[in-house]
Amino acid sequence: MRALVLHEKGRMSIEEVEPIGSPGPGQVRIQMHTVGICASDVHYWTDGKIGPFVLEAPMILGHEGTGTVVEVGEGVTHLAVGDRVAMEPGIPDPTSRASREGNYNVDPAVEFWATPPFDGCLVDEVLHPAEYTYRLPDSLSFAEGALIEPFAVGVFAATKAKIRPGDVAAVVGAGTIGIMTALAARAGGASRVVISDVLPEKLALLDGLDGIVTVDATSEDLGARVREETDGWGPRVVFEATGAKPAYRSLWELPAPGGTIVLVGMPVDPVPFDIATAQSRGLSLETVFRYANVHRTAIDLAASEQVDLSRFVSETFAFDDAPKAFERFLEGRPTDVKLQITL
Amino acid sequence: MRALVLHEKGRMSIEEVEPIGSPGPGQVRIQMHTVGICASDVHYWTDGKIGPFVLEAPMILGHEGTGTVVEVGEGVTHLAVGDRVAMEPGIPDPTSRASREGNYNVDPAVEFWATPPFDGCLVDEVLHPAEYTYRLPDSLSFAEGALIEPFAVGVFAATKAKIRPGDVAAVVGAGTIGIMTALAARAGGASRVVISDVLPEKLALLDGLDGIVTVDATSEDLGARVREETDGWGPRVVFEATGAKPAYRSLWELPAPGGTIVLVGMPVDPVPFDIATAQSRGLSLETVFRYANVHRTAIDLAASEQVDLSRFVSETFAFDDAPKAFERFLEGRPTDVKLQITL
Amino acid sequence: MRALVLHEKGRMSIEEVEPIGSPGPGQVRIQMHTVGICASDVHYWTDGKIGPFVLEAPMILGHEGTGTVVEVGEGVTHLAVGDRVAMEPGIPDPTSRASREGNYNVDPAVEFWATPPFDGCLVDEVLHPAEYTYRLPDSLSFAEGALIEPFAVGVFAATKAKIRPGDVAAVVGAGTIGIMTALAARAGGASRVVISDVLPEKLALLDGLDGIVTVDATSEDLGARVREETDGWGPRVVFEATGAKPAYRSLWELPAPGGTIVLVGMPVDPVPFDIATAQSRGLSLETVFRYANVHRTAIDLAASEQVDLSRFVSETFAFDDAPKAFERFLEGRPTDVKLQITL
Amino acid sequence: MRALVLHEKGRMSIEEVEPIGSPGPGQVRIQMHTVGICASDVHYWTDGKIGPFVLEAPMILGHEGTGTVVEVGEGVTHLAVGDRVAMEPGIPDPTSRASREGNYNVDPAVEFWATPPFDGCLVDEVLHPAEYTYRLPDSLSFAEGALIEPFAVGVFAATKAKIRPGDVAAVVGAGTIGIMTALAARAGGASRVVISDVLPEKLALLDGLDGIVTVDATSEDLGARVREETDGWGPRVVFEATGAKPAYRSLWELPAPGGTIVLVGMPVDPVPFDIATAQSRGLSLETVFRYANVHRTAIDLAASEQVDLSRFVSETFAFDDAPKAFERFLEGRPTDVKLQITL
Repeated sequence: MRALVLHEKGRMSIEEVEPIGSPGPGQVRIQMHTVGICASDVHYWTDGKIGPFVLEAPMILGHEGTGTVVEVGEGVTHLAVGDRVAMEPGIPDPTSRASREGNYNVDPAVEFWATPPFDGCLVDEVLHPAEYTYRLPDSLSFAEGALIEPFAVGVFAATKAKIRPGDVAAVVGAGTIGIMTALAARAGGASRVVISDVLPEKLALLDGLDGIVTVDATSEDLGARVREETDGWGPRVVFEATGAKPAYRSLWELPAPGGTIVLVGMPVDPVPFDIATAQSRGLSLETVFRYANVHRTAIDLAASEQVDLSRFVSETFAFDDAPKAFERFLEGRPTDVKLQITL
Repeated sequence: MRALVLHEKGRMSIEEVEPIGSPGPGQVRIQMHTVGICASDVHYWTDGKIGPFVLEAPMILGHEGTGTVVEVGEGVTHLAVGDRVAMEPGIPDPTSRASREGNYNVDPAVEFWATPPFDGCLVDEVLHPAEYTYRLPDSLSFAEGALIEPFAVGVFAATKAKIRPGDVAAVVGAGTIGIMTALAARAGGASRVVISDVLPEKLALLDGLDGIVTVDATSEDLGARVREETDGWGPRVVFEATGAKPAYRSLWELPAPGGTIVLVGMPVDPVPFDIATAQSRGLSLETVFRYANVHRTAIDLAASEQVDLSRFVSETFAFDDAPKAFERFLEGRPTDVKLQITL
Repeated sequence: MRALVLHEKGRMSIEEVEPIGSPGPGQVRIQMHTVGICASDVHYWTDGKIGPFVLEAPMILGHEGTGTVVEVGEGVTHLAVGDRVAMEPGIPDPTSRASREGNYNVDPAVEFWATPPFDGCLVDEVLHPAEYTYRLPDSLSFAEGALIEPFAVGVFAATKAKIRPGDVAAVVGAGTIGIMTALAARAGGASRVVISDVLPEKLALLDGLDGIVTVDATSEDLGARVREETDGWGPRVVFEATGAKPAYRSLWELPAPGGTIVLVGMPVDPVPFDIATAQSRGLSLETVFRYANVHRTAIDLAASEQVDLSRFVSETFAFDDAPKAFERFLEGRPTDVKLQITL
Repeated sequence: MRALVLHEKGRMSIEEVEPIGSPGPGQVRIQMHTVGICASDVHYWTDGKIGPFVLEAPMILGHEGTGTVVEVGEGVTHLAVGDRVAMEPGIPDPTSRASREGNYNVDPAVEFWATPPFDGCLVDEVLHPAEYTYRLPDSLSFAEGALIEPFAVGVFAATKAKIRPGDVAAVVGAGTIGIMTALAARAGGASRVVISDVLPEKLALLDGLDGIVTVDATSEDLGARVREETDGWGPRVVFEATGAKPAYRSLWELPAPGGTIVLVGMPVDPVPFDIATAQSRGLSLETVFRYANVHRTAIDLAASEQVDLSRFVSETFAFDDAPKAFERFLEGRPTDVKLQITL
């Protein structure tokens, strides 16, 4: 069984690993098909750690995975051999307090693929709890299935935003997560989503999408544009999707009075928060950490005519070329949204 | 100035009425263009009353109106002469307790067009508060503008439903309000809306709309179908849009555990409520009475590619033929959704 | 090991049962001390069934239990031998969809004490998941601990009501659950709770409690009184706690515009629901089924000075006299709130 | 008619002003009795401005007022001559978009007492809209009535916190607003409120209040203490009530997973916001700006046995000594909570 193993900072290789056994009760065995590369995978490769998570032993990379069920454990009724599936990569302790309250994403005990010390899914086969394994409809390809994980972040952000039907929303930043959030917000009830970025190539990828308005932040002010779109009132929901310090400078005055800011981007260091401005507008703020209870809705939205994830697969690499996908990621081509690897 | 005046139960006529004067502060004068006929207009004509509202003096009919601003009162800044506009027909006391809490639709002091003793808008010109008058984008016709009022009921229902992005929703009944609600729920974040009716002609009107699944209730069970669409779990949101007693029999077991029923249909008499079933599923229920704070979002959704209201205008009558529109309404043709009158 | 076993409708006895073994991982063994009698226990005894739950084999009764931890299973860290504890009697499948969404009370797979086919806690010792076992503070007696279960129903009702600090609330019915709900609503943020009943003895039990206003429904109209308490506006929250058909007649006009009705009482048959009235007031409705995620807060409230559960223990029976407690329950003395059995 | 007039930065005096006329429709004339001094009054005196609000003409100070109705305008039905009343000092444009959505506190058009250019209530008589004038129950003194305004800030904070019955809450800072917030949170449903300050004199003022736990921040860590109070889980709600930069350092890790931070304190400059920590706990944040729709509930809570505002009146000054109250405020005595002036 082949796997992409990260041995230490800067050193990874495809190699043979021990085959996994049969699925236990409630588990399924899945033959992996397509896996997307995420910034965190690349970060572990280049830095060996992310915040408190430090690589201390070899670890299989990858957490945006899709594949086919090849064996079904005892008690699993909603999946069958042959089902094409996408997987939720984080498995919480279901009896923890956070889980019982419905917030399993913030359960400190979550075991998440490719987050030390847990192996990821860039491997021929995985065992996975059936409850966190979702059947893909025929209309979704494996490539789209492997995009469900990042799209779920956007769907969770849109869910936390409590969008009201027809709201105008703004998204700061058209990186992968910004794009996923914009798609989710639009399909999730916004009549228009105004999204800005400093790279026109990013915005060009959204050209022609109904209800998506792009703003080139190098030449146009997002705030001015979005007020123009809303008779001067401002958007009821603003998603911050850069995590870049400068974005927080004008963030707090962006939403309409009574509006909501959803913090999706994850800045490394604390950012300046203009509380007085946020207060004078009566804002609410929501934070997004991964996702909970949205994989089914993410799949349903991706399967609707409104959302086409396939256009955001920028290039696909054979498994033998997996390291090349990581190198390409580091190039940071502005037209790249998602790089994927097929097994 | 011509108006369609209802004199008493069963007797209406087009006649000359006193011209209105100039708009006061905060008001605009509007030349009416298109007005839709609603069941309540017809009901006042046939019965002379609806519940506690009794016709005691001649009253101008019509409350689904659109037109053009022809004069602007003092202090009005967001509208100008020539603006094509749709109007919210109910004007509350803005200082009432309900209004201050954001629920102006349930303010007992609301003055609503064509609800005794207040005149409606089937008249050449009206004066209206600018704050309840909304500019139409160029992409919306007067016919679509006159559909904003019933669509706003659907948007308010969808707003109260607190749809989460990608939810599956069910709508019981494909009458005018059921259709408007289905469109609003779909555009408002549902990935799929399953709608049922006993008249196949109604459902045929929805053919080909992305994300709308129709169920012929004479041959298929809505509950069975919607569970099939949701892996047996049920829809998170169910809209009751018939107001017909039989619909409430199986309503309480329809939503998923933890789901919501939105009561849009208005039954004349009390209906049987199976509380034990609703409790065992932990349901929430929301009631819809007209709308509050949704006209802007309704217009924004109607202007998006996702919603096409124009297909639901079944026939348009000249003002001189206004009484014919009422007679046609009474025929109850299954293919009729909305009849409109142009002035 | 002694247990109170219900063999079939009408026949129960105290008898020896097989000892339980040692606690498994995540479990604790508890020596029971005090158990309250609930209407459902009595109902299984007199009728052999409640709705779909039918007694088909002998079952130990009781689900309102408190006791002392005598053995701790592997992996249990928050409990120790000697801890005085109250238990949540329903154990869901933690990986079910309802559980993952935070609504484990409506998980169809819940295993609930003394609900066929699951044994209850009127037995010398039980094994229980540590996660559903809560330490009692020193200030709470075993008698109060055994009242945490019914109080949790009230706390869950008050939680679902989304009481805003200072709201006036009304409670229809001062039975055990009505009283628990009134206490929870008051301690949970209401400035005043107006509670009505047709039995003055019930109301007398609440005399002298700060913020609790009692209404003798045989001589005074709850609606009139509560409007008087709220300058004519009505209470923002109304709890229905009788489940008796006549209570639903005037229920729908009781809350203030924009208010909420919380349905706690569980009527056997469907009740008449005046939807038009509820709509014209823009009401929301919430249903209560047992509880989820409130045992800790219920204990915290019971331990505060504001709530004194001990006054609602009407009589305590020795275990040998357990059947007498059931007979006494059937007498239906108006001054009885809670009968308890000590082991 | 006497008034306390601020002429310019540093210069105020009691002087004769023009008498006000009779109340217009919907207004009442009120003879002022007691007015509290707020930091903002003192700030205008010492600095002549607060943020964008700059004193450009003489202005009467004071906005925490209570008095007696002496004349009633046309159409006022809920108030009568002789009523003792407390007033909401900010009057919005009721037809504005913010007001219609229920958020009148963030209406940019609000006219607020003693905020340039609007006169305040340190004057013998005022005219005020009846809708923003609230009758005091007999059990509340004028002194308590004049504390309703700052208490309303606390009640609004507690309302925005969406406290669930029995939640444990923490309050950072026991200044006037911190104390008001703690009282409101406790009476508004929290089972315990843990409040910290660096001044033990502040905390001593809260001694003996049921459910209020004080933490001397000079010797004890609030986070450690509140985790101890919650079995290591943390409080579900945290109120920041200092506005002081150091308080934001450890704020983001204080709440329980899934918890809420309510930002009541208003820091002059942006503060560092550790978004990654807030995200990893899945926090929500709410901002507080004055209040909306809480004066009635604030009065109801203040009139309940649970809240005793009178203990927080530190000293009362005759009107002739009003300037002395301002000087005393500047002293910043740690035992001072509220200074009041009687007219």
